[in-house]
Amino acid sequence: MQPADFPSGPAWPRRALAQLRQLVAFPSISTDPQYAGAVRACAAWLAGHLRRIGLDGVQVFETPRHPIVYAEKLVGPRKPTLLIYGHYDVQPVEPTAAWTVPPFGAVVHADKLYGRGASDDKGQLFTHVKALELLLASGQPLPLNVKLLLEGEEEIGSPNLGAFVQAHRRRLRADWAVLSDTNMISSAQPSLTYGLRGALAAELTVQGPRAELHSGVFGGAVLNPLQALSELLAALHDADGRVAIPGFYAAVQPATAAERAYLRRHGPPDAQLLREAQVGQGWGEPGYSLYERTTLRPSLSITGLSGGYQGEGVKSVVPPQARAKLSFRLAPGQDPHIVEQQLRNYLRQLTPPQVQATLQAQLHAPPYTVAPDHPAMQAAAQAYTEGFGRAPVLQRSGGTIPVVSLFEEHLGIPTVLMGFGLPDDGKHGPDEFLHLPNFWRGIRTSLAFLRRLGAFQPSPSHASSHEPVLHS
Amino acid sequence: MQPADFPSGPAWPRRALAQLRQLVAFPSISTDPQYAGAVRACAAWLAGHLRRIGLDGVQVFETPRHPIVYAEKLVGPRKPTLLIYGHYDVQPVEPTAAWTVPPFGAVVHADKLYGRGASDDKGQLFTHVKALELLLASGQPLPLNVKLLLEGEEEIGSPNLGAFVQAHRRRLRADWAVLSDTNMISSAQPSLTYGLRGALAAELTVQGPRAELHSGVFGGAVLNPLQALSELLAALHDADGRVAIPGFYAAVQPATAAERAYLRRHGPPDAQLLREAQVGQGWGEPGYSLYERTTLRPSLSITGLSGGYQGEGVKSVVPPQARAKLSFRLAPGQDPHIVEQQLRNYLRQLTPPQVQATLQAQLHAPPYTVAPDHPAMQAAAQAYTEGFGRAPVLQRSGGTIPVVSLFEEHLGIPTVLMGFGLPDDGKHGPDEFLHLPNFWRGIRTSLAFLRRLGAFQPSPSHASSHEPVLHS
Repeated sequence: MQPADFPSGPAWPRRALAQLRQLVAFPSISTDPQYAGAVRACAAWLAGHLRRIGLDGVQVFETPRHPIVYAEKLVGPRKPTLLIYGHYDVQPVEPTAAWTVPPFGAVVHADKLYGRGASDDKGQLFTHVKALELLLASGQPLPLNVKLLLEGEEEIGSPNLGAFVQAHRRRLRADWAVLSDTNMISSAQPSLTYGLRGALAAELTVQGPRAELHSGVFGGAVLNPLQALSELLAALHDADGRVAIPGFYAAVQPATAAERAYLRRHGPPDAQLLREAQVGQGWGEPGYSLYERTTLRPSLSITGLSGGYQGEGVKSVVPPQARAKLSFRLAPGQDPHIVEQQLRNYLRQLTPPQVQATLQAQLHAPPYTVAPDHPAMQAAAQAYTEGFGRAPVLQRSGGTIPVVSLFEEHLGIPTVLMGFGLPDDGKHGPDEFLHLPNFWRGIRTSLAFLRRLGAFQPSPSHASSHEPVLHS
Repeated sequence: MQPADFPSGPAWPRRALAQLRQLVAFPSISTDPQYAGAVRACAAWLAGHLRRIGLDGVQVFETPRHPIVYAEKLVGPRKPTLLIYGHYDVQPVEPTAAWTVPPFGAVVHADKLYGRGASDDKGQLFTHVKALELLLASGQPLPLNVKLLLEGEEEIGSPNLGAFVQAHRRRLRADWAVLSDTNMISSAQPSLTYGLRGALAAELTVQGPRAELHSGVFGGAVLNPLQALSELLAALHDADGRVAIPGFYAAVQPATAAERAYLRRHGPPDAQLLREAQVGQGWGEPGYSLYERTTLRPSLSITGLSGGYQGEGVKSVVPPQARAKLSFRLAPGQDPHIVEQQLRNYLRQLTPPQVQATLQAQLHAPPYTVAPDHPAMQAAAQAYTEGFGRAPVLQRSGGTIPVVSLFEEHLGIPTVLMGFGLPDDGKHGPDEFLHLPNFWRGIRTSLAFLRRLGAFQPSPSHASSHEPVLHS
């Protein structure tokens, strides 16, 4: 679908793109306290925009850190309710020098809108906002009740969302949630994500001497914490690329032969993943394809490393401290709290007595799977077929979206992962972009999804059932 | 000796200390280009000061980076010549937060002058400057010819000193060199250093994917360069604390039983080294005391580690690159160029095919030993006895002073290492200080050394002999 195909006339898509560029221009980096003002400004802009398109009850809720934006349009208890979740915060932009465009310049070039957060998640959440705008402007009542929940802390592990969802259970009652923060297989092939890996993020600190020591005077007689950290990190994988933490794989539920066969047939082959990663050779757990290694199987990435002198030239020191950031991705069956304990036990066993190792957990998110034959998933599949002209394939994602577990736990509802991102669109890296044809097709997919869900009957409690009944 | 004991009256020590505080206040950090102006200003201050105390031929020589200050006082060819070397550049001050005083505040508290470079090497080189001032002010001719060479690049491996010494061989001709940039065993026990470890400094870079990747999407399928670097670093030591690079120890000359016995009797016991390092337990090569591990035996320290996201919180990336700074200290017999080649071979063998490892060598300095029974060493021992009221013990230092090899190679002269630093005076770490009683005793020791050397006959060439004849 081209922008001009929308019924609202040729000016509407131009305005929609200009609005999206405004949204992408906010440097709403949630992890870095110096951007807290930009996160807040972005929330205020969104709230104003949601009011202008005609949503009700728009509120900016304070949390201990970054605000949550809420809006709704209720058409009555005889209609089902969809909770639309998105996040307006973004990843940091470092290394800035690797960008070829300003990270918050919202530059449009050819069919791409460049900018940190353009795909993850501002552009994707905006598809639903624009679909609602079109429905609200049509003069017809909405086909269902909608509630929007836009978070500012997704990229830092949603530390305050659990408490918010719990406190506002009644307000957030719905039959299903939808979330667009996942990838399609390619721009030519839509896909519907039915599984996410869980996550455990933690920071490992190794403390050696109290103060920096001269490496000439003490080198060879005092254990260097940078060396001790390197040795601990090296012990986290075996020579074949498996995670070496005792018990780590014990709880992983093996995929069925049918699921593996489906993913092999429809998922990206190794060559495609290597092309997307721009690397020559794969790596990892033997016995699995690269796609399986990143979806069905757990992994451990060291995401940051620091210690000692990092400036230019030479400094002759034994530094006091070294730190590493660890990011586990967990497969179905694994529990992030149990993995944390396994890691703690292993580190305790490995850490030499001359240094202290401290682990600070920063994020726990369980893995998530929704049955592909769930009626809301089937509605989503049909909506994709309308929006993209092609039926979606089912896929697992290697990423983690902690909010789906919150919705399952506190609201008792499943979340449809209706992604419009692309695997090579630079999410979390430099030159992130939104593929604009996917933006326009995403709006149409959202429209179709909202209409199809409106045909279901609401569940009696609006909250308790996973299995809404098809309204004949 | 107390300041008041100097013959020049009570005002002179006050003035000398004020001048030293001015010298210490220059942030002459040679490794960081943003301090290049401060390095230059420090050189100009020193040149002015050397002119004012009555030295001749004072010049500031440009080099490709930081200038060299030269001065001399020649009393005639029938007198021997001493080349006094010192360095006015200093180490960086990071981590700044670990300092309890301003690093360039030159704060005096009790018997300590605090500041980066107070001990290494501004305070120590200034003992000779002040001794020369006292001799020049006495009205008598100097007992020998003196040449001063003050460098601004010692802390970055003296990259331009070799070319300078070679180009100015004639001007620098001398019978001996003296250098005060080593430690005494304690303030109560002077010591004379007869050996230095060599050094090889290098930066190891591991390059993985071209750009940052999302650790959810690619974690487990792409080799993480931070992990690869950790594994390479972990492989550099064996489980017992020995360096694991094949062939590393092959060329090390074993110490004689007599030398080991002497060092055991006079050197610091393990408990003292642990106290100075403020650590509870030692570490390193089995079969050697901590003092032997840091002097007779080689070592490898990781001095810096960096890669990926180092800011607050979580960033879900597989970073493209990781870096480590390596600092080898080399024992008698080892050649830094051969060790570099051994390291390159080992890294080539270990590096997995998914990443590229690059090694950039930054400093090569061979180990150095001067015979303790050399006449100039004996003169130094007698001078210490005068200055400190106690005969020095002989010691090896674990540090590296590349200039001694340059003087040996280009001028054919030995260097007397007449150190006034203390093992716990914070060199290269926070709260570096100069123990002021050592400053006053150091001046007296330098005076005695200059007078004793003046009693020797010059060698015919002023440059070729290691064995000056005692003038009866």
